[in-house]
Amino acid sequence: MSEHRLRLVRLGIDTHEESVVFMPADCHVCRSEGFSAQSRVHIESDGGSTIATLNVVRGGLVKTGEAGLSESAWKRLGALPGQTARFSHAPAVESLGAMRSKVYGHTLDPTEIAAILADMAAGRYSDVEIAALLTACTSAGLTLDEVVGFTRGMVDVGEQLHWKRDVVVDKHCVGGLPGNRTTPIVVAIVAALGIWIPKTSSRAITSPAGTADTMETLAPVDLDLPAMKRVVEKEAGCLIWGGAVQLSPVDDLFIRVERSLDIDSEGQLVASVLSKKVAAGSTHVVIDVPVGPTAKVRDRRSADALTHLFECVAREIGIQLRTVVTDGTQPVGRGIGPALEARDVLAVLQCTAEAPADLRARAVLLAGDVIEIAKCCATGSGAKLAMEVLDDGRAWSKLQAICEAQGGMREPPVSTHRWESLASAAGPIASIDNRRLARVAKLAGAPASKAAGIALRVRVGDSVEAGQPLFELHAETAGELEYAQNYLQTQPDILRVGRSLDGE
Amino acid sequence: MSEHRLRLVRLGIDTHEESVVFMPADCHVCRSEGFSAQSRVHIESDGGSTIATLNVVRGGLVKTGEAGLSESAWKRLGALPGQTARFSHAPAVESLGAMRSKVYGHTLDPTEIAAILADMAAGRYSDVEIAALLTACTSAGLTLDEVVGFTRGMVDVGEQLHWKRDVVVDKHCVGGLPGNRTTPIVVAIVAALGIWIPKTSSRAITSPAGTADTMETLAPVDLDLPAMKRVVEKEAGCLIWGGAVQLSPVDDLFIRVERSLDIDSEGQLVASVLSKKVAAGSTHVVIDVPVGPTAKVRDRRSADALTHLFECVAREIGIQLRTVVTDGTQPVGRGIGPALEARDVLAVLQCTAEAPADLRARAVLLAGDVIEIAKCCATGSGAKLAMEVLDDGRAWSKLQAICEAQGGMREPPVSTHRWESLASAAGPIASIDNRRLARVAKLAGAPASKAAGIALRVRVGDSVEAGQPLFELHAETAGELEYAQNYLQTQPDILRVGRSLDGE
Repeated sequence: MSEHRLRLVRLGIDTHEESVVFMPADCHVCRSEGFSAQSRVHIESDGGSTIATLNVVRGGLVKTGEAGLSESAWKRLGALPGQTARFSHAPAVESLGAMRSKVYGHTLDPTEIAAILADMAAGRYSDVEIAALLTACTSAGLTLDEVVGFTRGMVDVGEQLHWKRDVVVDKHCVGGLPGNRTTPIVVAIVAALGIWIPKTSSRAITSPAGTADTMETLAPVDLDLPAMKRVVEKEAGCLIWGGAVQLSPVDDLFIRVERSLDIDSEGQLVASVLSKKVAAGSTHVVIDVPVGPTAKVRDRRSADALTHLFECVAREIGIQLRTVVTDGTQPVGRGIGPALEARDVLAVLQCTAEAPADLRARAVLLAGDVIEIAKCCATGSGAKLAMEVLDDGRAWSKLQAICEAQGGMREPPVSTHRWESLASAAGPIASIDNRRLARVAKLAGAPASKAAGIALRVRVGDSVEAGQPLFELHAETAGELEYAQNYLQTQPDILRVGRSLDGE
Repeated sequence: MSEHRLRLVRLGIDTHEESVVFMPADCHVCRSEGFSAQSRVHIESDGGSTIATLNVVRGGLVKTGEAGLSESAWKRLGALPGQTARFSHAPAVESLGAMRSKVYGHTLDPTEIAAILADMAAGRYSDVEIAALLTACTSAGLTLDEVVGFTRGMVDVGEQLHWKRDVVVDKHCVGGLPGNRTTPIVVAIVAALGIWIPKTSSRAITSPAGTADTMETLAPVDLDLPAMKRVVEKEAGCLIWGGAVQLSPVDDLFIRVERSLDIDSEGQLVASVLSKKVAAGSTHVVIDVPVGPTAKVRDRRSADALTHLFECVAREIGIQLRTVVTDGTQPVGRGIGPALEARDVLAVLQCTAEAPADLRARAVLLAGDVIEIAKCCATGSGAKLAMEVLDDGRAWSKLQAICEAQGGMREPPVSTHRWESLASAAGPIASIDNRRLARVAKLAGAPASKAAGIALRVRVGDSVEAGQPLFELHAETAGELEYAQNYLQTQPDILRVGRSLDGE
């Protein structure tokens, strides 16, 4: 049917993951197929096929007989300049019925979940539909079976690694605590002991930095699967971005929409974490759950519910798992933001005098747990062994070796725009609001601007004089610095100076 | 700050309601402000200001020093060719915090609801954020106070009409029943009696036709407020599209996202309906609630809950309201789709032999209720009076007068592509699935293609022979006809022939 073919034009428009096709209003294909604005359109070329959302164009941007493609549509289609493609109505996406039933409070069975994830992986869900699914999972919650279904389903639609070893470890922090960048230290300690830890990390979802963002300031992190395997086989560990190895392509879609909504579903969180562990071939996993009034997990009861869910799902899918509930009342270390956190990591590994004691203590504790569940020492002696490996420089050597194997170690960037926040009164620091502090760091440009963020000068309990610096704001542009400052002016109590009200 | 100004270019791209700004990747404003893909950008010109989502462009589509605007951004800004504008970070939208709290199960107070609606009306919510809000309202439900809050809030952000009369009536059907196009008939009967009924209707949300879609095949419906007032003052009634008079601009945003998600929230439904009644200046309202296993309201219990909610909210906001629960087990009339339904309406008003008896009976019943709550006859005698006005031609004259006053009566369009669905076996029609039949009509192009839809030839209980026509598919293009046929092949039991299983 030659009348349904149009010549493809690469418009160079980055519409993010959602594929968009731009067709002229007078297009004969639009008319004969009955396409209208917001139609979901099926595009088939010699190179492949995809589904895209239609934006109608008036005024010559796209010529009659042509169809403009967004970058994501162009890439999904594997299109070539001058190529033509066939256009038709996108077939009805049957799994949307299951998505809607979830919105109305029904429970999804494994077949429905698998169908949803397969359609998402094939690009058949629009952003608005992914947003509805995520919101329903957050709002109505997910049953244990649903979480197991999402975990298994997410593994099934991505790549899966198999290592020829009985014990492959991993650690994960559920996040919400600015600056809690223990992962590179734990990986360095554990890998230095010869325990395999093929670590894939995410970029930030709703925080100013993910481990992948921080590591990217020290070495390349977007390695593909063969490159990742080479690094792990050589060094026992790696620290790469999970998105690049496509271990969980659907999770990346979820994360992108979660980020723009700034919401997290507990069930989705567990499925997201554990699916990536299974896909990465891990057998033993330690989960760090920081608890504090302004952390992601706010109280002990929520922590118990979350750790229980992690343990139940791990049992179902056959992973050994240990959860560690840690103090989440204030940020860890001094830096918040990719490069600033990387500097804290380096200080701990190099055992310098400025190394933040809290970051060091947490990393040693978690590395000890990993060593213990890997059965590489007696129960109760893991932390001691971890400290030895850190203090004698083996961990620092290992991080350098891993960075070199990933493509070469580098210096974290330095910010070009700075501003100091000063105490307006004297007294002890009563509290630090993790959430709003994270927001300031994001407004300053983190994680997209690697050098941006916050360098804390004080901790809860420290006494300060009026005019003493509380923290320093770092940005890469004047606009971002100003944006963060404007927000700070409306939030004078992010660091509260004075007697805590909690004791009254 | 001249360095933050860019020249505006109208790209002619219809991105629907969501405003999009297209900026080149090497743009100095992007760099100095730290914008990245998906940033929400504040644009300020001499004509106005708006917030838009950033799409980064590579490859010369937008030149350095320029910013391309989508149609919605161009219009919101009131931009002129050659004009420049200032670009900065969009201020944080504080009400998104309230939206997120709803996702996590908290109840919204009136202040939070008002803030959300004000931000939505100002274009500060992205489609993904509206989708999350709607999903949360559907999934978690809304309390009575929340529904009242949304109702009042939606009135407050739009225009409001005030008529100098004590009694101004309205009627509304909660929908879900294909072909149930009583409104034009009820308005004609009621207005013929001199009762004021300034009817604004919506276009289809998830159905093949809304009353506005159907009326548009008979007369112009996109009248502005002064034009609407002239029609009502002359004829006592009108039948126009509510979107054009901006009585509830936020509701139009909700409806657009609801349509693409194909979900409805009960609380949002009540708020949407009643806010438009209040905004239109109505004092007395009749609500038609069709109930059937494949209607929007599936059983008596759901109908009771919905009518109770309508009555409670109406009491809170001070309108007289009567709900009428009607039979929703099968479509009403013969046509499904704008023009096909308009032909049924004309047949009833003209009292022809082909007039569908069920549509006539329902319109008479509802018109009777409207006449009774308007206190224009004794209780129990409304239907009799309605029938007289219909039978003596006064209602038909009134519809013609209203259509002329709205800009001129016209003939509904006729489809160009048709196909008959034949019974595969003999027997009685056991059931008709409203939902899937509506879906077929939509796949055939309704409501965007006005002539598209379905003409039913049989009703539940009719006996058919093998090969006898069950319904006729109407489309305006070959592609749409084929699309609906393809779906029909996978759904052989939309009209079930044979003994009903219900009795066994």
